Amino acid sequence: MIGKLVNGIIHGETRSIARAISWIENDVPQKEELIDALFEHTGRAQILGITGPPGSGKSSLLDRIIEQERKRDKKIAVLAIDPSSPFTGGAILGDRLRMQKHTVDAGVFIRSMASRGHLGGVAGATSDSVKVLDAAGFDLIVIETIGVGQTEIEVMNIADLVMLVLVPGLGDEIQALKAGVMEIGDIFVVNKADKEEANRLKAEIEYVLHLKTEDEKGVKNPIFMTSATENTGIEELVNGLHEYMQRMGENGTLRERRRRRVTLELKKIITAKIEAHVHKFLETGNNLDVWIDQILRKKTSPYKLINEKVIQILKELKEK
Amino acid sequence: MIGKLVNGIIHGETRSIARAISWIENDVPQKEELIDALFEHTGRAQILGITGPPGSGKSSLLDRIIEQERKRDKKIAVLAIDPSSPFTGGAILGDRLRMQKHTVDAGVFIRSMASRGHLGGVAGATSDSVKVLDAAGFDLIVIETIGVGQTEIEVMNIADLVMLVLVPGLGDEIQALKAGVMEIGDIFVVNKADKEEANRLKAEIEYVLHLKTEDEKGVKNPIFMTSATENTGIEELVNGLHEYMQRMGENGTLRERRRRRVTLELKKIITAKIEAHVHKFLETGNNLDVWIDQILRKKTSPYKLINEKVIQILKELKEK
Repeated sequence: MIGKLVNGIIHGETRSIARAISWIENDVPQKEELIDALFEHTGRAQILGITGPPGSGKSSLLDRIIEQERKRDKKIAVLAIDPSSPFTGGAILGDRLRMQKHTVDAGVFIRSMASRGHLGGVAGATSDSVKVLDAAGFDLIVIETIGVGQTEIEVMNIADLVMLVLVPGLGDEIQALKAGVMEIGDIFVVNKADKEEANRLKAEIEYVLHLKTEDEKGVKNPIFMTSATENTGIEELVNGLHEYMQRMGENGTLRERRRRRVTLELKKIITAKIEAHVHKFLETGNNLDVWIDQILRKKTSPYKLINEKVIQILKELKEK
Repeated sequence: MIGKLVNGIIHGETRSIARAISWIENDVPQKEELIDALFEHTGRAQILGITGPPGSGKSSLLDRIIEQERKRDKKIAVLAIDPSSPFTGGAILGDRLRMQKHTVDAGVFIRSMASRGHLGGVAGATSDSVKVLDAAGFDLIVIETIGVGQTEIEVMNIADLVMLVLVPGLGDEIQALKAGVMEIGDIFVVNKADKEEANRLKAEIEYVLHLKTEDEKGVKNPIFMTSATENTGIEELVNGLHEYMQRMGENGTLRERRRRRVTLELKKIITAKIEAHVHKFLETGNNLDVWIDQILRKKTSPYKLINEKVIQILKELKEK
């Protein structure tokens, strides 16, 4: 059964791809076997992260980028990530619907993901989904997130390079930039560049980039001015994107980043699996309840008990 | 040496208390022994969480609450938590400096915490610090956070009850409330109640509270109108607070919450400790590097390797 699915995916069949991503979202047990079977077919796609605040016109911009890439005959897939935060949720989807016009085009695959159960978290599910799309032969895989929380940063770490979309007049962006987003951005886009304050925003980004330490200055981070609605600056942006990727391939950055990504992923999933063993142990046989009683009745003190139990758990886990 | 520190703390000496909290912040190894030694002296204090968006006047309000509690001869300690997020940081501290006038009063202890290294995260460090303050004989321990991220919610879980401070005209609060903060709020305060839209905000909170499921409606959540600057409504608020705590003690909610808190804490620290063992193992002897090479060269597939290694790690951990 997995053989058939694998076959469908490597032949780029939309239904097989969609099914595989659902497996990943729902964390079905066969997921691991599937990813392993696809693994030898991966490694060819370029992975682009796109992030930016709500209202920056990311989706319209992505729409234009898809048009450009299709003109160049590239197959493109988009994973729109909704972290399971109660603070984002519904509003996003409507925005993304605009991109759906591309769904009649077999060279374009668009999917919203809201992952909860995955052992490696949202980032883990995204990473596995990227492997599916990579094996399916997409040239460019775009991971789109909104905002700049911890989850989004983890998701962006999966990408080969990250495009940060900003827009004049939202005020707070530059603050956010200064505070830490800058370090994940490779390419900066000032969208709605027809707006008055666009040049000031560009100057501010340049200033912030200028503050980077010498060590980080090796690669020049380009800033592009676009208007998704007026369809201006898009070709330059897409050209710039490809040039940047090529440079990353040549100077070793790409190899280095992919290595770091695999390392992070491996550590995270190994830790999560061991954690799951531990939680299962804690939930079994009411161990935890007894210990809580001992603490609440002051029969023992918390760290004493914890340290005893850690040793005991390590022993018992071995015997499984 | 720990004996002397313990002695200082249970006699309420400010220097000893401050030192213990620094130990916790810096995650020094003796921290565990200290907490365990203090443990039998804990369990008497009431723990109040105060949260709300920046600009809600939380600090001024807390200032007034401290005044009220001091009139009633209660000893009060405040832990102001700065989660190590790049997005909050500096601005907060200035705001908190206003409270410093109380520092000449031996019945008041105020401390900003920015914890990074603690195994149980910010919430773990806060929880250990609360134990120190509890052992030191404070009647009321206030944990103050800003905003409503995941970290803040975890910190608020340490409190016996949570006061949510809102203010008219910030617009977004009610959205945030609807989205999930409501579930952590026990007592609601509309601060700056002299402002025009205060009554509308109150009505909106009432509406949101009305949406709670039947199951959650058992306890009535009071809403108080205050003005910290005009010093109105504070006495009512403090009275309401004590009544609410008394009711929680009588109807078993307090016992239940404390049990849940100890459970969460225990699980979290046990898991973190085992995780630390795993990470140490992964970092030793370049195991990880070899595995990454195997994956990057497609000599193995990721989950196959992960599952083999999880078994191996569980075995090796046992032997430590």
